[in-house]
Amino acid sequence: MSEAAQVLALLADRGHTVAAAESLTGGLVAAALTAVPGSSAVFRGSVTAYATDVKRDLLRVDGALLGERGAVDPEVALQMAAGVRDLLGADRGISTTGVAGPGRQDGQPVGTVYVAVSGPAGTEARAGKVVSLRLNGDREEIRRESVRSVLGLLREELSGNARAQDTEQNGGN
Amino acid sequence: MSEAAQVLALLADRGHTVAAAESLTGGLVAAALTAVPGSSAVFRGSVTAYATDVKRDLLRVDGALLGERGAVDPEVALQMAAGVRDLLGADRGISTTGVAGPGRQDGQPVGTVYVAVSGPAGTEARAGKVVSLRLNGDREEIRRESVRSVLGLLREELSGNARAQDTEQNGGN
Repeated sequence: MSEAAQVLALLADRGHTVAAAESLTGGLVAAALTAVPGSSAVFRGSVTAYATDVKRDLLRVDGALLGERGAVDPEVALQMAAGVRDLLGADRGISTTGVAGPGRQDGQPVGTVYVAVSGPAGTEARAGKVVSLRLNGDREEIRRESVRSVLGLLREELSGNARAQDTEQNGGN
Repeated sequence: MSEAAQVLALLADRGHTVAAAESLTGGLVAAALTAVPGSSAVFRGSVTAYATDVKRDLLRVDGALLGERGAVDPEVALQMAAGVRDLLGADRGISTTGVAGPGRQDGQPVGTVYVAVSGPAGTEARAGKVVSLRLNGDREEIRRESVRSVLGLLREELSGNARAQDTEQNGGN
């Protein structure tokens, strides 16, 4: 069973729905979830927020935060996850932001990625979790590893096995 | 050069931006566009509107239309394209809706797909174009052919070679 199928089965077990906010993965998280037949029962939808003002205006990420730190930031990731959860009326929100390359972005090197999951609906934004990644590989490898990471984070959260994960991990290919 | 890269180059030439609204393709259109380095210059973002109420509340598709005809409908496709164009402040909007399978949906057989492109910002929703497809293949093949079709439609529109296309085409694999 794919990671996406496992996550969807866990969500269905708990009667929870999910929504996704994507930056560097640009639709790949949604594509992975919707590749599974029957995903419509728990997947509400997603927003690919490539432009910074879409993160701010649609996902309600703090504009001052974006101005100060840019879009590649752990707090931005958390706010994206909570924002899309609330926007699409889901129980859980997940998000990705980072630098897929080929060049640096917002002063951050290629492979700097943050993936987040928001707490259940009704909890404050900071109730979520963020994982910081430094990934190797080309643009496509970095995007695909980011998808695996955010689905893995959600799976851990749903399994109740999530550890405190606000630490740097080494990923890569 | 991939279809996505060609479309992005045409958009850049014209100084136009694009946004996508996806149902059955579930993120694959956005993923194809964002696979191209530099896409952020013209790709504003996308909404994967899997749930019907997301099509209505976020993309502003007419609720009565959705109630009468379901989500797999050419007028729904047009309204999704115009809706995401306006929501994300793009010059052009593109959309996909249809039945990827494995089962029928809204009374429509597997492989029934509509892809649409909205006219430039400021034009009314009906100024766009819709292509009706009947696709063969499995879920993934239907999704991938739908991506190719909507990118092809946008390319034709941008090239100024678009014919009146509100007719049924035979696609497939």
